[in-house]
Amino acid sequence: MTPSHLALGAGGEFDRLRAIFRALGRGARDLGDDCALLRLGRTTLALSSDASLEGVHFRTDWLSFQEIGWRAGAAALSDLAAEGATPLGVLVSLGVPASGRRAARNADPAAEIMRGVAAVAKRVDARVLGGDLTRSPRYLVDVCAIGTVERPVRRSGARPGDGLWVTGRLGGAGLGLARLRAGRGVAGVVRRRFARPEPRIAAGRWLARRGARAMIDLSDGLAGDAGHLAAASRVRVALELERIPCWPGVAPLAAARSGEEYELLVALPRRFGAREARAFRAATRLALTRIGACTAGRGVRMTDHGRRLTPPPGFDHFPAR
Amino acid sequence: MTPSHLALGAGGEFDRLRAIFRALGRGARDLGDDCALLRLGRTTLALSSDASLEGVHFRTDWLSFQEIGWRAGAAALSDLAAEGATPLGVLVSLGVPASGRRAARNADPAAEIMRGVAAVAKRVDARVLGGDLTRSPRYLVDVCAIGTVERPVRRSGARPGDGLWVTGRLGGAGLGLARLRAGRGVAGVVRRRFARPEPRIAAGRWLARRGARAMIDLSDGLAGDAGHLAAASRVRVALELERIPCWPGVAPLAAARSGEEYELLVALPRRFGAREARAFRAATRLALTRIGACTAGRGVRMTDHGRRLTPPPGFDHFPAR
Repeated sequence: MTPSHLALGAGGEFDRLRAIFRALGRGARDLGDDCALLRLGRTTLALSSDASLEGVHFRTDWLSFQEIGWRAGAAALSDLAAEGATPLGVLVSLGVPASGRRAARNADPAAEIMRGVAAVAKRVDARVLGGDLTRSPRYLVDVCAIGTVERPVRRSGARPGDGLWVTGRLGGAGLGLARLRAGRGVAGVVRRRFARPEPRIAAGRWLARRGARAMIDLSDGLAGDAGHLAAASRVRVALELERIPCWPGVAPLAAARSGEEYELLVALPRRFGAREARAFRAATRLALTRIGACTAGRGVRMTDHGRRLTPPPGFDHFPAR
Repeated sequence: MTPSHLALGAGGEFDRLRAIFRALGRGARDLGDDCALLRLGRTTLALSSDASLEGVHFRTDWLSFQEIGWRAGAAALSDLAAEGATPLGVLVSLGVPASGRRAARNADPAAEIMRGVAAVAKRVDARVLGGDLTRSPRYLVDVCAIGTVERPVRRSGARPGDGLWVTGRLGGAGLGLARLRAGRGVAGVVRRRFARPEPRIAAGRWLARRGARAMIDLSDGLAGDAGHLAAASRVRVALELERIPCWPGVAPLAAARSGEEYELLVALPRRFGAREARAFRAATRLALTRIGACTAGRGVRMTDHGRRLTPPPGFDHFPAR
């Protein structure tokens, strides 16, 4: 049987991850989740690192340096949210050009990026613990988030019969990105959604306490991350497109493709229903919507009012040629 | 009084760090050491992250990908050594070019880098806990090391009267670098010293137990790191050049300038003497040499057989223009 850490979805990035896991052999037995777990006495630590690179993950003409820092911090903290963990702090490795572009007329970009990381950490009652500063031809922010978790929720625990739910609304980050790509400005709630995503820490903890079986954050987009959850859990994920809670002005298929949403996709036992979803909303002020179910089988099946669709691919850093 | 985290040595890199600390305000009160400390019940966690970038910290024509991974892991683990900590594991953020240069004829560089990180982690009884893989125009390895520490040793605890000691011998890494820069091959012990440095975990723990007051690893070179220790501890560090234990064929001044040595510089109470150094050598199979003392005052003073020298600068990522 394939170890669950080799059970990733499709894509060149995941082929490379599989090669890494093979190289590490037995040492890789704990890998494959966005979050690493480490037992320490009676405590379990949850750890995640997320690298954000200029030109790959962000552009300095689209975002302020504070926003770049916030987003990088949010990406790492979101992995802790999907584990049901409580963050304690973050370490930040910063790479900045030696010339300090913009530094002459504005605040030091390195300090601004750190302000942004510190702000998102504070938002979830965590803090900047330390880090590393180095010269780099392009800006680079790598955030390692550390927290504790009582009842870790992996992506591998879903079972046939579980309901599949998503927090919040999808598509806002994609909408912001599309506007920026089109050379248009982004302001207001769409900018906030794109530039200052909220790690769903309270939501993740609530869901973990209420028996979440598997959870993953939507960094690659719903379609892609549903594939990872399905592969790790060895189930088929059946998504009903018409149920996806969409950002105003975003079509369901676009919402399913939108990456870096940082909402949570969660498999919950069948008994979890509308009453529990209302309790979730009361506790977190976030919607929780049932968008499908887990069944026997493999992969992702997507339907639109019962009609079968080909699932749109998630984001892949290493597309096949 | 200046908070101790603002008390760094001279150099453009440290000016930028000071700007970051100012931006974070009270949130930065714990920064300024290579290692972050986090209390968790009765345990104290020690955390450190170190980014290694192609073209800044390494060249792919000088080192194998496994060596690149080893060095990156050693840099982070060495910070834990200087704290007196025991490592548990590492998280690794990898950035690799999409084309996978060399991948066609050799093993996947990403997997090779991870093999190297895993090997140095195993060397100190730690393991790879997880990580992140991303596309990057140049290779990038950011390692976050995590461990526990009973009696943390900061760089700020040295007092006038303390002796100043160094582990091992200095200059081997610089020798390797000089040969590579000159286009010559490096093999044998010099290559091992440069390409596979040993994090001094056992040495750091031994010294912490025996009352080390301040400790720092020699990543910036003896002269530079002595300056950081002096600034953080508010003492003057008096170094006696002729006492520096040098790698064969390396002059004392070159040894004092050599960066990425990953030996430990440690301030020990005056009572610590030759007998204790012999016990250290018996326990760790490493030399421990007294190379100076801490006195009242500021900065680094270096003498050669009693004649005063201008201290050579340490390595600075952001030199003033």
